Amino acid sequence: MIDTPSLVDQYCHGVLRTELGLGTFETHLAPTPALPAAGTTFFDTQAGFAVRRWCPPLLGLEPHCPPARYLARRRELGVLEAGRRLLRASGIATYLVDTGPPGDLTGPAELAATGDAAAHEIVRLEPLAEQVADTSGTVDAFLANLTEAVHGAAAGAVAFTSVAGARGGLAAVPEPPGPGEVRGAAGRWLARRAAGGAVDDPVLLRHLLWIAVGAGRPLQLHLGERDPGTLAGFAAATSGLGADLVLLHGYPHHRQAARLAGHFPHVYADLGPVVARTGARAAAVLAEFLELAPFGKLLFSSGARGLPELHVVAASVFRGALARVLGEWVADGAWSRADAQRVAGLVAAGNARRVYRLNP
Amino acid sequence: MIDTPSLVDQYCHGVLRTELGLGTFETHLAPTPALPAAGTTFFDTQAGFAVRRWCPPLLGLEPHCPPARYLARRRELGVLEAGRRLLRASGIATYLVDTGPPGDLTGPAELAATGDAAAHEIVRLEPLAEQVADTSGTVDAFLANLTEAVHGAAAGAVAFTSVAGARGGLAAVPEPPGPGEVRGAAGRWLARRAAGGAVDDPVLLRHLLWIAVGAGRPLQLHLGERDPGTLAGFAAATSGLGADLVLLHGYPHHRQAARLAGHFPHVYADLGPVVARTGARAAAVLAEFLELAPFGKLLFSSGARGLPELHVVAASVFRGALARVLGEWVADGAWSRADAQRVAGLVAAGNARRVYRLNP
Amino acid sequence: MIDTPSLVDQYCHGVLRTELGLGTFETHLAPTPALPAAGTTFFDTQAGFAVRRWCPPLLGLEPHCPPARYLARRRELGVLEAGRRLLRASGIATYLVDTGPPGDLTGPAELAATGDAAAHEIVRLEPLAEQVADTSGTVDAFLANLTEAVHGAAAGAVAFTSVAGARGGLAAVPEPPGPGEVRGAAGRWLARRAAGGAVDDPVLLRHLLWIAVGAGRPLQLHLGERDPGTLAGFAAATSGLGADLVLLHGYPHHRQAARLAGHFPHVYADLGPVVARTGARAAAVLAEFLELAPFGKLLFSSGARGLPELHVVAASVFRGALARVLGEWVADGAWSRADAQRVAGLVAAGNARRVYRLNP
Repeated sequence: MIDTPSLVDQYCHGVLRTELGLGTFETHLAPTPALPAAGTTFFDTQAGFAVRRWCPPLLGLEPHCPPARYLARRRELGVLEAGRRLLRASGIATYLVDTGPPGDLTGPAELAATGDAAAHEIVRLEPLAEQVADTSGTVDAFLANLTEAVHGAAAGAVAFTSVAGARGGLAAVPEPPGPGEVRGAAGRWLARRAAGGAVDDPVLLRHLLWIAVGAGRPLQLHLGERDPGTLAGFAAATSGLGADLVLLHGYPHHRQAARLAGHFPHVYADLGPVVARTGARAAAVLAEFLELAPFGKLLFSSGARGLPELHVVAASVFRGALARVLGEWVADGAWSRADAQRVAGLVAAGNARRVYRLNP
Repeated sequence: MIDTPSLVDQYCHGVLRTELGLGTFETHLAPTPALPAAGTTFFDTQAGFAVRRWCPPLLGLEPHCPPARYLARRRELGVLEAGRRLLRASGIATYLVDTGPPGDLTGPAELAATGDAAAHEIVRLEPLAEQVADTSGTVDAFLANLTEAVHGAAAGAVAFTSVAGARGGLAAVPEPPGPGEVRGAAGRWLARRAAGGAVDDPVLLRHLLWIAVGAGRPLQLHLGERDPGTLAGFAAATSGLGADLVLLHGYPHHRQAARLAGHFPHVYADLGPVVARTGARAAAVLAEFLELAPFGKLLFSSGARGLPELHVVAASVFRGALARVLGEWVADGAWSRADAQRVAGLVAAGNARRVYRLNP
Repeated sequence: MIDTPSLVDQYCHGVLRTELGLGTFETHLAPTPALPAAGTTFFDTQAGFAVRRWCPPLLGLEPHCPPARYLARRRELGVLEAGRRLLRASGIATYLVDTGPPGDLTGPAELAATGDAAAHEIVRLEPLAEQVADTSGTVDAFLANLTEAVHGAAAGAVAFTSVAGARGGLAAVPEPPGPGEVRGAAGRWLARRAAGGAVDDPVLLRHLLWIAVGAGRPLQLHLGERDPGTLAGFAAATSGLGADLVLLHGYPHHRQAARLAGHFPHVYADLGPVVARTGARAAAVLAEFLELAPFGKLLFSSGARGLPELHVVAASVFRGALARVLGEWVADGAWSRADAQRVAGLVAAGNARRVYRLNP
């Protein structure tokens, strides 16, 4: 049996503080904000089945009990006590928490206290840029403040993350935009922008990513449905500059993400989607990551948001999948037990501790 | 053991009425019209091996007997009697039959009689448009008749299907074309068209799809080798209008199809390629569909055409694959037996009955 | 148990003749020239673990012994003796060797002698064109000499291979360029070229591929990270002309490569990446190839370069994977034992013997 050490969850969000009804709980089981079709429910997904497998026992119920009974028990305990029981049973020792955009989720400190764990902040670049725009009077001030804000954030955060940044222009033009181009884009964006408006200009987004690269922290890029190959140019352009790139959410292109992680020394692949979302299939998806990626380049995460159940499921499914996959390879003689144990430690926590410079 | 109920085959064609020699039979084993390379045969494929596994026993022979012996026995019984024995042993209770383009295959009524099953018509949009063009004298008449023909067909059919529609332009421009654009495209197409000529104008094809969406029936879109992501714009544009979209033939992009089915309430994914074509690998491919798709969004089909053997193989392989995949998850404790049994029923028949409003 | 006959390695390179230190050995474990990240090593990959599983016992050590001990033993035996022991234990009876670009690797004759096997040359088209350019005085002479050189090489080689050819332009324009277009491109390229400069003009590369097609030998196309679908146009354009196309290195798009091999009689898919690089996962990847490809269209290769360990690992992992995958299908009753044995023979050697017209 392969042991998995305490986990570092290298990308997650906080949890909701309010009591949830069945419908609201259900919407959080979908990978993206979506409605179920008439006559169907998101409880009928791998994520839903995994929640029903792993979470009821932590609240004193039978595995696979009906959703309504689980939600009733959850309300009976109260959201705080349920959250405490769930997170403390997850086996996650350290959470890296994406704190943007600002919302009604618990922040790193509160998550740490609830889960009896450590927590560190990941700063999301787009909301940061939007806050700077809200408080800067001129284009010059905005650009100066932006650089200062990113470098300032780097002092207190373990990483940056960007959702919009990997979209569109980065594939076509990976290099940093020139100063005149940036000034022009900033001027046009600020002029057409209402307060709070999202940063959507491709030149500005690219500029933002390059400031973050210059700040030297690991930069997590949300792939969404994009082929990681579209980031190969950006990976080549940032190679050797000192900032690592972590590819988030590559499924179903995770084999390409793993391949890219083998090609560039500073590129890493997140295992996020393997866990919270594919349940009984997690071992199969995890094994695909382990085809071409060097084992020092893969990082566990939950990607969980809103429900502590998702942190629990991610951790439980991941441990089970890792133990099964590596255990079979040991049983076949393909891997030695010592190697398997060592790789489990790297993927579960060691790689993240090294990349994010966390104290063990 | 997971039981699979009687199947609804949500997309298939009729069967040939003529006796077949070895060579003609073989060409129907290829997924697309193709010739085998010199020194090779399409019997040496998963489809060929699956036919030899499942069909000879239904005609009184040993499984895996040589193709020539099987074909000899088939001719001995006669195409009608062989077809009757095969289809009646398939476990398919309802066939949804693509009746276009017109050809020498049995229609829904004949398929139903041969297979002792129910059958309903799926109307293919392109041949319908071509028939309308053949009988309309002017552009105005053509456009008026086209709308009327699609709405008229909706009364007698359970669904529409389109092969050419998902190609090309739909990814770039998902919205319905304006009336002037449609008139112009129709005029140009009719002017250059010989009688019976295929509808290949992207604007007209888009118009045709949007008429079908307006008619409110489920619309089956052939993906071919396209990434289902190219249909995300069309899915977004048709969301909430009342017509469901069913993505056909997504392999090897089936994980993207499954993901899209989780994102849009009105999008469904067909399991077709999993069955008739991948034989011993069907369980593995089916399991990939079951990663991100909500279980209420997956639909069995055979995609069979010409040979009743392909209906039989699709049904047999699908049942076996579903029982194996879900059975393992139950054995692991990942799913409850009751859930597995329920999901098997949805995917095999229940989802199709709901989407196509079939009487149970 | 499925027996695998002696293998034909349909695409590999020679091995290094020099003693290797740990660091140099390690870089050859990466699929592309790459550096490991700080704190990681390419020994921590499936390729590294597979080398440690299969090779130490051939040099008298325990499987999975530490890399440093293995390298010490390798130096103790000497590179020649180690190479002889490794290659002779690989089970590869015939090597098809890519001899370009010229370098410090052993050629076919030396590889054959070391491995006690047969070996044949694969001529790489780009270096051939560059040599012709180095020795031709005018555009006309270059073009005439180029055709002559390719046809001349065809007499002594079993196949052509092209690395740059499948890039860029081939997807957009599959047809052969016209004589004027070729003359213009050749003139511009020769004018701007320093001696030894790489052929990078898309028109010239396309011309080169079409000369090779005309020479009638199988043409191996390196896919790199490209979707094999981008070659569908070239496959269609070359259909029926007598030269086979072999798609190399399709992972992770190997399912598309397998599909294309089923669609065009003259298209074949290489299994290369399945073996040397994915180790404990090779059976899973191999099984994906076996979904849609006709079994007469798949060809084993090692893709090995530089280290005889990579030839050994490829062969060992491939045999194990094939025996496992086919063995399970026989155990399930999905395939007959006789068919499985026959397919194993085709994929391991028979298909290559037929395609490259090798004497058995």
